[in-house]
Amino acid sequence: MQANRIHNFNPGPAALPYAVLEEIRDNFLDFGGSGMSITEISHRSQLFDDVINDAIARTKRLLGLDDRHHVLFLQGGASLQFAMIPMNFLSGNQSADYVDTGTWSSKAIKEAEIQGRAIQVVASSADNNYSYIPRDINFNADAVYVHMTSNNTIKGTAWAELPDTNGVPIICDMSSDIMSRPLDVAKIGMLYAGAQKNVGPAGVCLVVIRQDMLDLVPDSLPTMLSYGTYAAKNSLYNTPPCFAIYTLHLVLKWLEETVGGLDQMAAINRKKAALLYDFMDAGGFYRATAEPASRSLMNITFRLPDADLEQQFIRQALENGLGGLKGHRSVGGCRASLYNAVPLEAVESLVDFMKAFENKNG
Amino acid sequence: MQANRIHNFNPGPAALPYAVLEEIRDNFLDFGGSGMSITEISHRSQLFDDVINDAIARTKRLLGLDDRHHVLFLQGGASLQFAMIPMNFLSGNQSADYVDTGTWSSKAIKEAEIQGRAIQVVASSADNNYSYIPRDINFNADAVYVHMTSNNTIKGTAWAELPDTNGVPIICDMSSDIMSRPLDVAKIGMLYAGAQKNVGPAGVCLVVIRQDMLDLVPDSLPTMLSYGTYAAKNSLYNTPPCFAIYTLHLVLKWLEETVGGLDQMAAINRKKAALLYDFMDAGGFYRATAEPASRSLMNITFRLPDADLEQQFIRQALENGLGGLKGHRSVGGCRASLYNAVPLEAVESLVDFMKAFENKNG
Repeated sequence: MQANRIHNFNPGPAALPYAVLEEIRDNFLDFGGSGMSITEISHRSQLFDDVINDAIARTKRLLGLDDRHHVLFLQGGASLQFAMIPMNFLSGNQSADYVDTGTWSSKAIKEAEIQGRAIQVVASSADNNYSYIPRDINFNADAVYVHMTSNNTIKGTAWAELPDTNGVPIICDMSSDIMSRPLDVAKIGMLYAGAQKNVGPAGVCLVVIRQDMLDLVPDSLPTMLSYGTYAAKNSLYNTPPCFAIYTLHLVLKWLEETVGGLDQMAAINRKKAALLYDFMDAGGFYRATAEPASRSLMNITFRLPDADLEQQFIRQALENGLGGLKGHRSVGGCRASLYNAVPLEAVESLVDFMKAFENKNG
Repeated sequence: MQANRIHNFNPGPAALPYAVLEEIRDNFLDFGGSGMSITEISHRSQLFDDVINDAIARTKRLLGLDDRHHVLFLQGGASLQFAMIPMNFLSGNQSADYVDTGTWSSKAIKEAEIQGRAIQVVASSADNNYSYIPRDINFNADAVYVHMTSNNTIKGTAWAELPDTNGVPIICDMSSDIMSRPLDVAKIGMLYAGAQKNVGPAGVCLVVIRQDMLDLVPDSLPTMLSYGTYAAKNSLYNTPPCFAIYTLHLVLKWLEETVGGLDQMAAINRKKAALLYDFMDAGGFYRATAEPASRSLMNITFRLPDADLEQQFIRQALENGLGGLKGHRSVGGCRASLYNAVPLEAVESLVDFMKAFENKNG
């Protein structure tokens, strides 16, 4: 841990690679020899073109995309995509399938319903408090798309792999696990991710959309609510969130050049999560809340014997330089978010602290 | 001018106060003693609440707002507001008046038309290439609102004061002159401003909305497209653009505590603009393009005797540490944007350079 820094287990906005933060700081008054800050340069300059095009190229390489895929940068977070997706892809009586695995997929369903679109919730784990990922789902062959959330930040669950939808394109909210492991790209019609968990700061949403999905977008939409606008203008129809895209590009550079790509990142993430799950499974004091087969490697939700102990745990952890361990306000308990930028060393420190806390209070 | 810095006349993203940039840099690895970067802290933390609430309080003080006004932070820039405004305020056969003073107001009109809303363009300066602000406009008494653009970044024109609309609330795009002078608040039903010109970096749009306008918003809108959502949740329904709001809050702090408020800022801005306009008016080599009564104090558009000289001028200016002087690609020519953060010293340097260039080429 660096001087004056803590281990940051926040669920988002979340930890960024230390080297990325240093690079931003060191160049903040003079970006690329321009004599201006990255926050002061024109989005129509060569300097910024290089930034955004590098972010796109790295996204394509890291995720294994091809010429059919457009990489876009939007604002409004994943929450705006919830509304834009039915608006862009469902016309007339066309229907889409939605899988409900908790808060964020529920919100995506709600935004389609607000617009009166025909959608079907084909599976849900609401019956057991969203503690598992549904299996053996009957998808509709005539659905335009299947919407799902690959990792559920609040409930601590994740799909081990993308489901087989019989060729119907998946639209996937990957906000909390994008770039944490290689992508099964053939199944994806579109993916989107608020950057503030795994790939950058708050303020930009990474969208990947395949040409056949883009072909469905009607001409009649408000300009800023059409994916077509962003694809046609390289996300530069209006001023984009330059600083957020710049930071995202540095994070992707770190992923490629320092970590070595998504296979390596996935191996590190598996190791980090195993360290914490194995420790909890071996004892009885801490209890992981997700079903074992549905466990997230990104957001590890757990409970202590009672709520008082949980409060003490969270407070004492922070006093020991371990921050962001409080569960989401809607579910309580504890949560350790182990995104890409959280190093193994942080998880080791957390487990050490958990052992000491258990010894004192168990 | 600081070492390794240039004088930045960019139209947006644009110059930020040097002291603000330094403060961001100096605290970038450890914000407020949290051991985390401002880009890594939770938007639900006390630390961030303090930032956003300070930004709101300063906006209210600087603009002279009262309890009826809500200060909101949105994403998508002014361009998304173009679409949200008719969506939020016009229902059924209700109509609104629009004044067309150039590119941005034309785009606002287009987004209302895309949605098939009943609007009337009650005045336009298209007949003379938008080089002036229309006068003696007949506003419709039954309009829900009058939409206008207070300062036209591309055409270099500005309203000397807000028009008398007979009590119809004005919705004003103030992206390029927000906080440059005191606000005539009684006429305003809503204002909005992409931050990246006068109050911050790209990635956040400042919106001020009066309660009676908010009361018009229907319940049926997609959540992220309703101003009601942002007002009800203090702009924290989902993760906001934290870094952009943080920077905006520092700029407003600078405006209040260093500059001394909008009266002082307006006096400085008048002085800066007068220096440049007076110099150009006294000679014949440089020609300001806007009608004198409609001149912007923020974006000063001008021509040289021919396009070749303009190219040389822009290139040689940059070699002399004066950046961002190229006119918008849709109109050509030159433009010096003299936003709040551009110091008088920068304008003095520009005029000195202009004199020298004229001596060599005039």
